[in-house]
Amino acid sequence: MTQPLLNEIADVGRDRRRGGYSRHVFDDADRQLRDWFTARAARAGLGVEADRNGNVWAWWGEPGPDAVVTGSHLDSVPGGGAFDGPLGVASALSAVESLRAKGFVPSRPMAVLVFAEEEGGRFGVPCLGSRLLTGSLAAERARALRDTEGRTLAEAAASAGFPPERFGADTEALGRIGRFVELHVEQGRGLVDLGEPIAVGSTVIGHGRWRFSFSGQGNHAGATLLTDRHDPMLPAAGVVAAARRAAASVPEARATVGRLVPTPGGTNVIASTVDVWLDARVPGGGSRALVEEIAEAARAAAADEGCEVTVTEESYSDDVVFDPGLRDELSATLGGAPALPTGAGHDAAILAAQVPSGMLYVRNPTGISHAPEEFAEADDVDRGGAALATVLERLCQ
Amino acid sequence: MTQPLLNEIADVGRDRRRGGYSRHVFDDADRQLRDWFTARAARAGLGVEADRNGNVWAWWGEPGPDAVVTGSHLDSVPGGGAFDGPLGVASALSAVESLRAKGFVPSRPMAVLVFAEEEGGRFGVPCLGSRLLTGSLAAERARALRDTEGRTLAEAAASAGFPPERFGADTEALGRIGRFVELHVEQGRGLVDLGEPIAVGSTVIGHGRWRFSFSGQGNHAGATLLTDRHDPMLPAAGVVAAARRAAASVPEARATVGRLVPTPGGTNVIASTVDVWLDARVPGGGSRALVEEIAEAARAAAADEGCEVTVTEESYSDDVVFDPGLRDELSATLGGAPALPTGAGHDAAILAAQVPSGMLYVRNPTGISHAPEEFAEADDVDRGGAALATVLERLCQ
Repeated sequence: MTQPLLNEIADVGRDRRRGGYSRHVFDDADRQLRDWFTARAARAGLGVEADRNGNVWAWWGEPGPDAVVTGSHLDSVPGGGAFDGPLGVASALSAVESLRAKGFVPSRPMAVLVFAEEEGGRFGVPCLGSRLLTGSLAAERARALRDTEGRTLAEAAASAGFPPERFGADTEALGRIGRFVELHVEQGRGLVDLGEPIAVGSTVIGHGRWRFSFSGQGNHAGATLLTDRHDPMLPAAGVVAAARRAAASVPEARATVGRLVPTPGGTNVIASTVDVWLDARVPGGGSRALVEEIAEAARAAAADEGCEVTVTEESYSDDVVFDPGLRDELSATLGGAPALPTGAGHDAAILAAQVPSGMLYVRNPTGISHAPEEFAEADDVDRGGAALATVLERLCQ
Repeated sequence: MTQPLLNEIADVGRDRRRGGYSRHVFDDADRQLRDWFTARAARAGLGVEADRNGNVWAWWGEPGPDAVVTGSHLDSVPGGGAFDGPLGVASALSAVESLRAKGFVPSRPMAVLVFAEEEGGRFGVPCLGSRLLTGSLAAERARALRDTEGRTLAEAAASAGFPPERFGADTEALGRIGRFVELHVEQGRGLVDLGEPIAVGSTVIGHGRWRFSFSGQGNHAGATLLTDRHDPMLPAAGVVAAARRAAASVPEARATVGRLVPTPGGTNVIASTVDVWLDARVPGGGSRALVEEIAEAARAAAADEGCEVTVTEESYSDDVVFDPGLRDELSATLGGAPALPTGAGHDAAILAAQVPSGMLYVRNPTGISHAPEEFAEADDVDRGGAALATVLERLCQ
């Protein structure tokens, strides 16, 4: 059963200020969750090992080629929900337990995989563990990523016992994966609208993150005339409006500013710099063009205020179409489960460039995700675990 | 000499992230600065005592009525300069030392006064110590103020050894002040333009702080269609634009957003709430009308996005005209020093409602304040200390 496993970690990493959970790679909650997973996997008879990039693998049988691998992540966005990530890990563990209980013997290696920092909540790059594993993020760039305290990923990893000099494309680990299946709570109301508990994934919209860094002149909020100001908050606020305006003109496009940091951040202080992070997602490869349109508006607004702006692409992913054969096999195995597209990124979509990958979604009655209101009914949670067991059994027959 | 005194505290409370200094009431830097002041005042033969509200008094002679009191504050805005506050305290100490050195014996009590939390950098209300002393801020409201960590002023004060139950209008302490003079670095280029090193204060523009709290629905930045969003960042950014627009239409008005905090603050997360702090200052009592205009725009923008907004006045001060007799006496004593208005608030302006108060300004070649670039030449710093000594001698003859 999956729900009891989720209950075991219900108190780990709660965020009292934001609500929900804040669980970020190599923080205290992350350590507790890794310990929990290691103990749980060992109790299920799995052999646990970390790879070079901070991802954790739990093997049923000897690690080997053509393995069926399933899993997800245990980290969260700041103030996130209880299901995004952990549902896939708990479902994988419960699926293994139920297959063992019924005496199933897999015909090929099987593993549960927990990816590091899927949300990019601490170091800014989403799907950090899967990007490193597949080589789509260079080890050198990853090591230099910094959290808001100024600590590098290299430093944080070293303190947690993961030598950062070992980061990098891990062809040996990746080469073992025959097929990958990730179960995830749905981040929308597709299943609610269909009246179904489980779907399979079809596509993921391309997405990326851009940092707009505005600099002006910090000064006194009372003593400085408007005409003497170079206030970077003006063009920074303009990005929020420009992003909405630009995205509204492109079908299916999404553009979001959820993080905006003025420095020094005093009430009676004109900011000297403002950093704005833009999350943009446009189907059909349109994300960069959308961002360029927003950047043009930002440059004009910065110039109007006598400020400077630099725009940095922090991550980028193209559209992903999950392996059609695997998608159809998953759907058929589950009695014709519907296929759903999503605007949310996943480790499975990173792996999809190199190995056949697919996803299962579990109904979310609120349709909300990345927020404490994210939910799945206990019955649906257990249905998800059972569906994953069915799928794994099929793929390992 | 004043500059050597400033040098003694040059390393206290440096802010490596923002640059400059972050010194806030009852934090570690504040404690070090209080200890420094106490030791320095004792060495100058002054009797040091804290009042009921966390302000520190250093008396030359017995505390008593009709005293001449001078001083300023030691706290800073986040990432502030080295002079805003400490210049007035160091000048007061050096003035006392030079008067003692020349054998001057004051004809009435004299004191150096260090106010707590003038910038409101930790608990949000500027001139916290002088407002409590004068009763313009109720003790009960003060005790309940919270810092960004959620700690109340009452808790922070108690930990620092200042019993919060003693907070409140201190008529005994206030009743001792015959005249109050605060020396401060100029927060503009008035003296640069005049080619003068020292000015006296004439007026302070009325000012206040308002918090706009927007709430919407936190959700996934990729999976949530634009049409399904209730994103409080949109109307929050609108406040920045509306504040500039509204202030630009009123002569001499200033309106600033220097602090804006989205929660949870994740890059791939639509915020659930955004708090925006508006600093507004309009001569002639127009601040509240200006804010109401901005609030109207905020309510409309919030409604457009399906969000809610509440507007809270966190502090408010009317225009202040410093005592004309004292102003003219200060100017004449300093050989006809010019009189300057300011848009910056000061403890002297809070006291001005109850006792004759005045100010001296020291030239700032950058014109910048509340930022690391704030500056005063060492010669001007010592000229300021000497001018304050001259003024104190005159007022105590």
